[in-house]
Amino acid sequence: MAEPSAGSVPPTEPPVETPTAEGAEDGASTSKKAAKKAEAKAKKEAEKARRAAERAAAASSSGTAAQAEDLAKENYGQETHETKLSPNSVEVTLKEISEEHVGKTVELRAWIQNSRAQGAKMVFVELREEGNWTIQGIAAANPEGAPVSRQMVKWVGGINPESFVVVEAVVQKPLEPVKSCKVSYFELHITKCFVHAPAPTMLGMTLAAANKPIANFSDEEAPVEQAVEKLSIAPAGEASAIPAASMLTHLDNIVMHKRAPVQQAIADIRIEVKDLFRSFLKSKGFKEFEPPCLIGAASEGGANVFRMPYFEKEAFLAQSPQFYKQFEIAGGRKRVFCIGPVFRAENSNTPRHMTEFTGLDMEMEIKKDYHEVMHMLEDVLLHIFRGIKERCAEEIALVRSVYPSEDFLLPEPGKEVRLTFAEGQKLLREEGPEEYRDVSDEEDMSTPQEKALGALIRKKYKTDFFVLDKFPDSARPFYAKEDPANPRVTNAYDFFMRAQEILSGGQRINDPVELEARIRKKGVDPNSPGIKEYVDVFRQAGVPAHGGGGIGLDRVVAWYLNLPSVHLAAYYPRTPKRLLP
Amino acid sequence: MAEPSAGSVPPTEPPVETPTAEGAEDGASTSKKAAKKAEAKAKKEAEKARRAAERAAAASSSGTAAQAEDLAKENYGQETHETKLSPNSVEVTLKEISEEHVGKTVELRAWIQNSRAQGAKMVFVELREEGNWTIQGIAAANPEGAPVSRQMVKWVGGINPESFVVVEAVVQKPLEPVKSCKVSYFELHITKCFVHAPAPTMLGMTLAAANKPIANFSDEEAPVEQAVEKLSIAPAGEASAIPAASMLTHLDNIVMHKRAPVQQAIADIRIEVKDLFRSFLKSKGFKEFEPPCLIGAASEGGANVFRMPYFEKEAFLAQSPQFYKQFEIAGGRKRVFCIGPVFRAENSNTPRHMTEFTGLDMEMEIKKDYHEVMHMLEDVLLHIFRGIKERCAEEIALVRSVYPSEDFLLPEPGKEVRLTFAEGQKLLREEGPEEYRDVSDEEDMSTPQEKALGALIRKKYKTDFFVLDKFPDSARPFYAKEDPANPRVTNAYDFFMRAQEILSGGQRINDPVELEARIRKKGVDPNSPGIKEYVDVFRQAGVPAHGGGGIGLDRVVAWYLNLPSVHLAAYYPRTPKRLLP
Repeated sequence: MAEPSAGSVPPTEPPVETPTAEGAEDGASTSKKAAKKAEAKAKKEAEKARRAAERAAAASSSGTAAQAEDLAKENYGQETHETKLSPNSVEVTLKEISEEHVGKTVELRAWIQNSRAQGAKMVFVELREEGNWTIQGIAAANPEGAPVSRQMVKWVGGINPESFVVVEAVVQKPLEPVKSCKVSYFELHITKCFVHAPAPTMLGMTLAAANKPIANFSDEEAPVEQAVEKLSIAPAGEASAIPAASMLTHLDNIVMHKRAPVQQAIADIRIEVKDLFRSFLKSKGFKEFEPPCLIGAASEGGANVFRMPYFEKEAFLAQSPQFYKQFEIAGGRKRVFCIGPVFRAENSNTPRHMTEFTGLDMEMEIKKDYHEVMHMLEDVLLHIFRGIKERCAEEIALVRSVYPSEDFLLPEPGKEVRLTFAEGQKLLREEGPEEYRDVSDEEDMSTPQEKALGALIRKKYKTDFFVLDKFPDSARPFYAKEDPANPRVTNAYDFFMRAQEILSGGQRINDPVELEARIRKKGVDPNSPGIKEYVDVFRQAGVPAHGGGGIGLDRVVAWYLNLPSVHLAAYYPRTPKRLLP
Repeated sequence: MAEPSAGSVPPTEPPVETPTAEGAEDGASTSKKAAKKAEAKAKKEAEKARRAAERAAAASSSGTAAQAEDLAKENYGQETHETKLSPNSVEVTLKEISEEHVGKTVELRAWIQNSRAQGAKMVFVELREEGNWTIQGIAAANPEGAPVSRQMVKWVGGINPESFVVVEAVVQKPLEPVKSCKVSYFELHITKCFVHAPAPTMLGMTLAAANKPIANFSDEEAPVEQAVEKLSIAPAGEASAIPAASMLTHLDNIVMHKRAPVQQAIADIRIEVKDLFRSFLKSKGFKEFEPPCLIGAASEGGANVFRMPYFEKEAFLAQSPQFYKQFEIAGGRKRVFCIGPVFRAENSNTPRHMTEFTGLDMEMEIKKDYHEVMHMLEDVLLHIFRGIKERCAEEIALVRSVYPSEDFLLPEPGKEVRLTFAEGQKLLREEGPEEYRDVSDEEDMSTPQEKALGALIRKKYKTDFFVLDKFPDSARPFYAKEDPANPRVTNAYDFFMRAQEILSGGQRINDPVELEARIRKKGVDPNSPGIKEYVDVFRQAGVPAHGGGGIGLDRVVAWYLNLPSVHLAAYYPRTPKRLLP
C-alpha cells in the first residue's frame, strides 16, 4: 500500500460560504429585484464554473495523451461492475473516523462538494456525507505514478461538484485542523476514486447558493424583464459573492435545496420535535392511532375543505383528526395521539400557510378538570423545546448561521405563563398599543392583536411561550365545553410561540344532550350530514369527559427557529399554487 | 371507614362470552343468512335487556320510597360538580392494583361491563378499563345502611352496561380467584359509585356481541325479507347464546366495536408493529420524513388515483410515497422511512382492499448490491414478527380466541426462504396443481397462483414468510432496475405472508439516461406530466444507487393474525361504499 505525503495544507477558502451580514438578512423581507439580481448572478457564476470544468476536462485528456503510460489508470474513472477496491480497505462513514483509522486504508461513499487544484500534482477535494459531515481529501501524484498519477490528479480535479463518488484513501492527520470541514482533525489521502453518479456540469443551484437565506417566498416569479429592469436600483453595498435564490428556484432544484446544510439541519430538528412529542406522550400512557384522511362529510365547516368525487359519492379531506381522536376515547382508550397530514383548502398565499401540513394531535380522558389536558400539552411542548435545545444544539446553531434568530425564551419551571383570554385582553387594553384600548373580552383575537399581546408578554414575563385559556364562547366551535361557572367562556385554550398561535384545544362536550343543545345554540342543524353521525357516537355508550389539542409540526419548527416561512420547515410545501415536486 | 365483608363468591357466568366452536368459525365464510339470523337474535336479546333494566329501575325507585331513610344517599347517583370522594382515597388503574392496596380505599374510573344482583343486599359488577383490564366489584348493603344501603345496591345494579362510572372502594382478596376477570386476585368492595356518563338502556350492540367473530363483511346489507326467508336454512347445531353481527353493524356501532376486547387487542398489536418498524429502522440509521399526500400529477399510473379540483388546477392523492422517498435519497439522505396514508381509487369490494391504508415505507442507498435492501426489509419484518410474538403474546391469544388461527411459521435464523421468481414458477410447474403446469417465467403471478405457491412453500420449508426475487421485466414498472446480468428480469422482489403479497420493492434506476431509455421502452412518454419532473430530479445532481419497499401496515396485522378481513386491522376502514364514521 502506497503512502501519500502525510499532512497537507488545507485550501484557504472555505468551500461553503459561511453566512455574511448580507446573507443573514431576513429572507422574507428581501425585495424581488434583489432576488432577481441574485439569480442572474447565480446563473452567470454557474456558467463560469461550467466553462472552467470544460477547460479542465480538455486539459486533462490532452495531458493524458501527451504523457507516458498512466500507472494509476485502474485507480480512477467511472465506476463499473468491474470496479474493485482493495480487499483490506475498511468501510467507514465520516462520523466514525477516529485515531484508530490513522494510517489505515478506508473506503467512503460521498458527494464531491468541491475541489481545488494546487498545480498539476495535487488536488484538494471536499467530500460530504449526510448530516453535513465533510472531510478534506487530497489526491497527490506520486513521482512513480502509482497509485496516484498526474492524470488521476487532473481527473479528480475535474469531477463535477455534487457527483457521488466511491473513494479509497489512507486516513492521515493534517498539519493543522481543516477548519472548513466538520471532520477537521483527519484528512483522506486518496488512492482510488470512482464516480458512481455524475452531477451535471452546470448545477441548477450550487450548494453554496442553496445554503443562503431564501430571498423571496412568493409563489409567483416576477417576469424576467421586470427583474432586469430593476437591477440598477438594487441595494448597493458589500454584496456576497454567492447570491441568494428564491423559494421557487429552491423547489425547482429540490435536490440541491435538500442537500443544503441548513435544510438538512431543519429536517433533523423536525425529526427530533416529532420524536420528542411521540416519546413523551407514550411515556404518559398515550396510544398512537391513525385517523382517516378521507371522510364522508365536511363536518368541521365546509368552507376550507377539499372535496372530491368518490365513486358514486363525494369525499372530503380531513381538516383535523379531532372527531376521530374523540371516537378513540369513546371507543375505550384513555389517552391517544396521532401524527399525520391535515388539509386546508384555504387560498392563502402567505409564508404562514400551507394546504397540507403535519398535525401532532392528542386527546385524553379528564379525571377532574380540563387543566389536566392543558398542562399535559404544556408539558409536552416544554419537553420538546428543552429537548431540541439540548439534542440539536449544533443544528440550531447551523440554522441560525443562515437565518439568525434570538434564543427562544422559556419560562422557568413552575413559572409558566397562563392567562385567561380576558386577562390577555385587559393587558392589551392597559399596556398595549393605542388601537387596542377597546378590545372586547367576547370577541376572538386578530393576528395583529396576538402579535401585540405576545410582545407585551415577552417583555413582562421573558417568555416566547404562553397559554391563553378560557376563550369566549363566540370564538369556539360547537363541540367546545362551556365553563359551567361562566357559560360566556369555554374550557378552551390556545398556545403561542413567538406571538403566533401554534395550538388550539380544550375540553369537548361528552354528553349527547348537552352537545345537541349547543349545536342548536350555535345555529347549526344537529341533523345535518356529519354532525348527526358525530353526535350519535356519544349516544352509543357512556363517554368520559375528555379534551385535547392539535399542534402544527411545521409551525413549531418554523417558529422555534424564527424562520421567515413555514415552507422551510416542510419537506414538500403545498400551497394553492404549488403541488410539485 | 366502613369495611365491607371481605371475600365474596364470584358470579358464576363469565360476563363476556369466551369463544365457542360456533363463534370460532371463519367470519368471512359464514353465510349471510346466518348473519341475519344472528342480528335478529341480537336485537331480541337487547330488547330483553332493556325491559329487564326498566323493571330494575322501577323496582329500585319504588323500593326507595317504601323504605326508611337512605343513609348512603351521598354515596351514589349521577356525578355532579359537588360529587366528593374520600380525601384519603388513592387513585389507581386496574393494572396497578397489588398486595399493597389490600384494605385500602381506592378510586377508579371505569366502564360498568355488567352487573348481577344476588338478592336485594348484594350486587356484583364487572368494571372495565382500557387494555381489557377487568375487576369484580361488589356493593353489599350494610345492616346499618352506611356507606352502602339496600337502595344503593339496587341503584348500582340498575346502571346500564357501558356507562362510565367513578367508584370508591376498598381492595380485598376474593375467597377464590375471579376467573372471569383479568384482575382475578383482587376485588373491589364498593363504598361509593357515581355515574359519570350513562350508556343508553339499549345498546346498539352489546360488548359480548361486539366480541364475537364478524359474520359478514359485505358493505351491502342483505334486504331484511331475504334474511328472514333464509333463516330456516341456516346451519343447525349448538348455537351460541350471543349471536355475531355484520361488519356494517359493527361500524354503525363504532364505539362498541372499538370497546370489544378483540378490537382493543388488534389495535394494540398494530401499535407494536408500527413501533417495531420504526425503532428497528431508526437503530439502522434511517430518518423519518413526511411525504405529501397531495400531488400534482398521477405519475404512477392514472387508473387508480383519486383526483380532485385544487384551486385553478387538479390535484391527486398519492398512491405511494415512493418518488418522495427517492427524492430524499437524491437530497442527501442515506436511509429514510415514512409511515402514513396512501390512497387507491380501486373499486374493489373485497376483504383484502381499502381505498385508504397505512403504508410503512423505506428507501436506502445501495453500496454494492440491492440485496442489502432486500435483507434489510426481511430483517425488519422478522424483527416485527418475533417482536409481536414476544410483546403481544396475550393480545395474540385473545385475538385467536375469537378468530382462531395457526401460529405464524417463521424460518429459522439463517434459513430464510428466498426464491427467484423463476424458481417459484418452476416449483409451481413441477409440484403445484395441474393448472399451473405451464406457468411462464416472464408473466406476473395471479393471486390464486400466489396462494398455490405459498402452500407449496409452507409444506416444503415450514414458513409462512418468504421472498420472491428477480421479478420479470414485464411485471415491473418503468423505474425498476433491470438485472445487468439478465435484462429480462429486474432487481425487484415481493414479500409474502400466508401466501399473500405484503411488500413490493426493489432497486430503482438512479441514472437519468438509463431511466429515460427504460421509460421509452415501456411505451411511456418521458415528457408526460409527472414523469418529466420525476426524471429531472435525477438530472439535478449525482444520485447514488438506491432501493426500497413498501409494506401495508393493515395487511401485516391482518395476515399475521389470519383475520378474515383487513378491515378489522384498520381503525376506520375506507371502502368504495364506506366513508363513515
